[in-house]
Amino acid sequence: MYRGGMPRTKGDHEARRRDVSAAVWQVMATRGFAGLTLRAVAAELGATTGLLTHYFPTKRALVEYALDLLEQRTVARPRRSTGPGLAALRDALLDILPLTPDATDSNRIWVASWDTALADPAIGADHARKYAESRARLAQRVAAAQALGELPPGDPDRIAAGAQSFVLGLVVQSLLDPDRFPPERQTELLDDHLAALTARLA
Amino acid sequence: MYRGGMPRTKGDHEARRRDVSAAVWQVMATRGFAGLTLRAVAAELGATTGLLTHYFPTKRALVEYALDLLEQRTVARPRRSTGPGLAALRDALLDILPLTPDATDSNRIWVASWDTALADPAIGADHARKYAESRARLAQRVAAAQALGELPPGDPDRIAAGAQSFVLGLVVQSLLDPDRFPPERQTELLDDHLAALTARLA
Repeated sequence: MYRGGMPRTKGDHEARRRDVSAAVWQVMATRGFAGLTLRAVAAELGATTGLLTHYFPTKRALVEYALDLLEQRTVARPRRSTGPGLAALRDALLDILPLTPDATDSNRIWVASWDTALADPAIGADHARKYAESRARLAQRVAAAQALGELPPGDPDRIAAGAQSFVLGLVVQSLLDPDRFPPERQTELLDDHLAALTARLA
Repeated sequence: MYRGGMPRTKGDHEARRRDVSAAVWQVMATRGFAGLTLRAVAAELGATTGLLTHYFPTKRALVEYALDLLEQRTVARPRRSTGPGLAALRDALLDILPLTPDATDSNRIWVASWDTALADPAIGADHARKYAESRARLAQRVAAAQALGELPPGDPDRIAAGAQSFVLGLVVQSLLDPDRFPPERQTELLDDHLAALTARLA
């Protein structure tokens, strides 16, 4: 029986878990969900496909693990916090954009996950819920900016839905064409979007 | 030698080509690129996987065919044409949104294709070129609206990049959460975006 790579202690087990997570992340960031296979993760880890089946008995188990990992890393990512009101809305939108290598990897994996989410009703419903929660958090920041007189009146949910759409589309453009959408350009376009929202105040 | 499904005349061949295209399209619209396999297309077509290998000797040949089909159907889709200037810009943006079942299928396939595009440099470069061309066409409409005094001055490329980002993100949200983003809501959010662009004129 093959035991070479199997964990023997709790510490071994935790270390191996971290190695597996890092390998799954790396495969997703370079090959996307279409390239996420037990074989590719095993190769990244320098392990056998047989070992991986102890962690992921099915392709679906691997995909679910990958989506959990994406969610965890998204929740745990560092956040900007430069001020209240409109500054806080801008911070939240900047936090989404692929302005750093880490944020680029995460976004690349989010974009890749959409294909899976659209093909699988359960994953799709979970994605819809996550984006609705994200919109609700943006709407709170919109309402706070309105309370400070930094944004004109209007349905905060609607302004948040527009801002979320804008940022997600900018993520897609920036990933597909990083030469034409470097970080400065992304920031400039976000500031254009915010300036247009505030224009009715002027 | 298996000949049952092979075309014998040019007419047979053309008819079979159309059947294959319809089957590839249907598989992409329901399962995405991750689910696009010779086996799935064969099942959709009611043919053997062996027959399909005459058309697509490799998985990559199938993916390239699918991307060509997506491009052809996008170019050939019906377009709105309600007026010049800002109306023409709005038409072009409405033409992108998933407001009908056909437009929903096409968009679902475009979104699915991004995973493939991000994993494959040649396909990625081709996608970047297509979106740059689309932005250039939008920029022409922005400039025409500015010439008519319907949009304030400003770099047309930059306004077009913002509008394209907004619309692509709205496509993603609408596909992932069609209940919260029915056609009326999509149209309302697009009109909010255009209203914000024109606000500086008021």
